[in-house]
Amino acid sequence: MTATDPTDHFDEISQFDSKSLFKPKVVSLVVTNSPETGPNVMTASWWMLAGYDPLRYQLAVSHKTHTYDIIERNPEFVLAAPSTDMIDALTLCGQVSGRDLDKIDHLGLETIPGQDVDVPLLADAVGNIECSVMESFEFENCTYYFGNVENAYVTKDGLDGRMLSLDDADVLAYMGSDWGEDDTDTKYRYYADLGPENLERYPGDEVIESLPDDVAEDL
Amino acid sequence: MTATDPTDHFDEISQFDSKSLFKPKVVSLVVTNSPETGPNVMTASWWMLAGYDPLRYQLAVSHKTHTYDIIERNPEFVLAAPSTDMIDALTLCGQVSGRDLDKIDHLGLETIPGQDVDVPLLADAVGNIECSVMESFEFENCTYYFGNVENAYVTKDGLDGRMLSLDDADVLAYMGSDWGEDDTDTKYRYYADLGPENLERYPGDEVIESLPDDVAEDL
Repeated sequence: MTATDPTDHFDEISQFDSKSLFKPKVVSLVVTNSPETGPNVMTASWWMLAGYDPLRYQLAVSHKTHTYDIIERNPEFVLAAPSTDMIDALTLCGQVSGRDLDKIDHLGLETIPGQDVDVPLLADAVGNIECSVMESFEFENCTYYFGNVENAYVTKDGLDGRMLSLDDADVLAYMGSDWGEDDTDTKYRYYADLGPENLERYPGDEVIESLPDDVAEDL
Repeated sequence: MTATDPTDHFDEISQFDSKSLFKPKVVSLVVTNSPETGPNVMTASWWMLAGYDPLRYQLAVSHKTHTYDIIERNPEFVLAAPSTDMIDALTLCGQVSGRDLDKIDHLGLETIPGQDVDVPLLADAVGNIECSVMESFEFENCTYYFGNVENAYVTKDGLDGRMLSLDDADVLAYMGSDWGEDDTDTKYRYYADLGPENLERYPGDEVIESLPDDVAEDL
């Protein structure tokens, strides 16, 4: 018997809590740099793939941010995938502006010069992607930058085939933030601590074999 | 001692393999519907948050897809977060066009009518988000749709506070696809099988307390 009203089957949640559905997610640390400002790091989850060949990432940057001022001076950025050890960076770089604090210095983040962008990579990240902006557009109070991938790096032995090695790449799989049960001001961050034992392999042969012949032959 | 060349410290990877860095990720099943075509489901990872109040999702849709034809007729969509049981849907809906196969029927997916959009929800998903397109723009061969959240739902008891309950919401945390070691044509899909034992809580108090007073008082 099929439900006719979604609330017969689901709990209704707020528009804001809809963000919880697509977790775990690896949130990016976005590095930017210009001669006038020096380098800066911002926590950013408003980015996605947007172009395959060449591979591109689209990054949304609010006009209120220091990152916007920097990227308008030098249209390049680095997307860094944080390791679990970088959870302090993820926390701080989402709350404090680079106008008020040199976050890289305060956090003691080690950097390595980019090869094809004048933006540093984060040495403790699981990986870094050098991007150069090839196009952008504005909508409301954000600019959406399309960045071509110039170079990409992963921690040594961090890829196993085409996938992150859960042995060697300790990526920070963010689950969300919430207030603890104890009555404090602490807003806890939560993440999924993953190891090789969590990896499941799924062949998917059967669903492909189930297809009608005329559909299957086009695959 | 700091590396001066990224390859002293990292393995260089291809632009395509850069996608591996930001995993695990919950890939969306995008549902669309129009009177002329009926409902359709497409696997889509090119989407992100893009607007906070009202909360919006931006979705990129290639002009080659059936989803594009449908959404141009009826500018609404549902973002569904698949459960682990829906891995066949994730596989098939990323490979076969709705022009060639009624994927909902073939997969036996149960649907529930949306409340504020004329697009069905997927009953077996961990959650569904009803979106109505408020703006769009074209770039190269894609249209980028900004969808306002009309309603959002999670599986019963699926949220624990503001986070997915890893007890009650068995979300499909996609790790990527790769060929197996055995010499077959099978392209395996991999996912992280998560349970409550994987959840780590991090207070982050210390890094906030480490801030200079004038920075801390603005938080």
